[in-house]
Amino acid sequence: MLQLYFFPMACSLSSRIALMEAGIEAQYHLAHIWTKKIVDDGSDFRGVSPKGAVPVLVLANGERLTESAAVLQYIADVKPKAGLAPSFGDPDRYRLQEWLSYIGAEIHKAFLFPTFWYKDDGSLAKPRARITQTLAVPAAHLAEREFLVGDRFTVADAHLTWALLLLRPAGLDIAQWPSLSAYLERMQARPAVREAVATEMALRKNLAA
Amino acid sequence: MLQLYFFPMACSLSSRIALMEAGIEAQYHLAHIWTKKIVDDGSDFRGVSPKGAVPVLVLANGERLTESAAVLQYIADVKPKAGLAPSFGDPDRYRLQEWLSYIGAEIHKAFLFPTFWYKDDGSLAKPRARITQTLAVPAAHLAEREFLVGDRFTVADAHLTWALLLLRPAGLDIAQWPSLSAYLERMQARPAVREAVATEMALRKNLAA
Repeated sequence: MLQLYFFPMACSLSSRIALMEAGIEAQYHLAHIWTKKIVDDGSDFRGVSPKGAVPVLVLANGERLTESAAVLQYIADVKPKAGLAPSFGDPDRYRLQEWLSYIGAEIHKAFLFPTFWYKDDGSLAKPRARITQTLAVPAAHLAEREFLVGDRFTVADAHLTWALLLLRPAGLDIAQWPSLSAYLERMQARPAVREAVATEMALRKNLAA
Repeated sequence: MLQLYFFPMACSLSSRIALMEAGIEAQYHLAHIWTKKIVDDGSDFRGVSPKGAVPVLVLANGERLTESAAVLQYIADVKPKAGLAPSFGDPDRYRLQEWLSYIGAEIHKAFLFPTFWYKDDGSLAKPRARITQTLAVPAAHLAEREFLVGDRFTVADAHLTWALLLLRPAGLDIAQWPSLSAYLERMQARPAVREAVATEMALRKNLAA
């Protein structure tokens, strides 16, 4: 059985959404990304992955895969019938990779990451100034499309859904981008997305308490 | 024929390296990423890609593909015999995607990008503090390996080669990481890498002059 190391509402949420959308049963381990402890047993998360970052997907053969772009494509390919990624050889597969890269680098690493890890105003002025033009790209793309790639939900949507959910805690009002706001509402109406988010919100509240 | 919009020594260098390693003939267009002008004719680069970022690969059907992780995999798949990416279905394909994500997000977007675009000390203190632990990951991986993935040169090596070449202009001495230093030397001994870098260094000097 696949195992996912996650931290509630961190970017590993998109891997949980993908697993649930695909109906893939998995074991979930909460890894505290600030303290680097695995919550189950208090052991050092860097023993699982020296990066100390989520997601880490433990494959059936015991190997560990990191980085959302890779983990999400792996999950999609475990169950191709779920249609969470265009199949290899389909030109849309590169569009999926293009969006995974853009979300991971431009929204996550250039904006959300400094917002939640660096925090001080000096570090944040430039990332905050830049995020408006960054979000204009998916906003324009989704103005007349239901999904990021093709005409069905893919792991790119799982990843963007996570990123958009964090805009409010990052201090941004998604209402500035009506197409993104409508998109997020559509995505959140999906049962798997709703369940994944509810599960992680509850875990996050417990951690904070 | 494929066309690549590039800026000399920007991350599009890895796409040029991949094209040259694969022996794929392509047209190259210099897009000035600071002024957003295409140097050939002075037209607006955002007309080619609203992101205004390189690389942009124009495919045979005229579609435009962006984001290094997607462009590099596309180039590798144009000529599978060149072996620049494990084939689809090979578990190592996810390792390739894992490295492309790590280089693109952690080295490029979290460090090189703020270094060259944000510049001020307030923006750079945290990224500079973080890069040592970031580079420890490929340094450990390459201590006993010749290449990032499997036992041959892939597009992940093209991307890391570019990133490592920028450490010096970013104010870091690669000698701190002997395995990375030795790796970069090996990569730079490859004829395609040497030619791609020499071409772009000359173009960059012309731009600056």
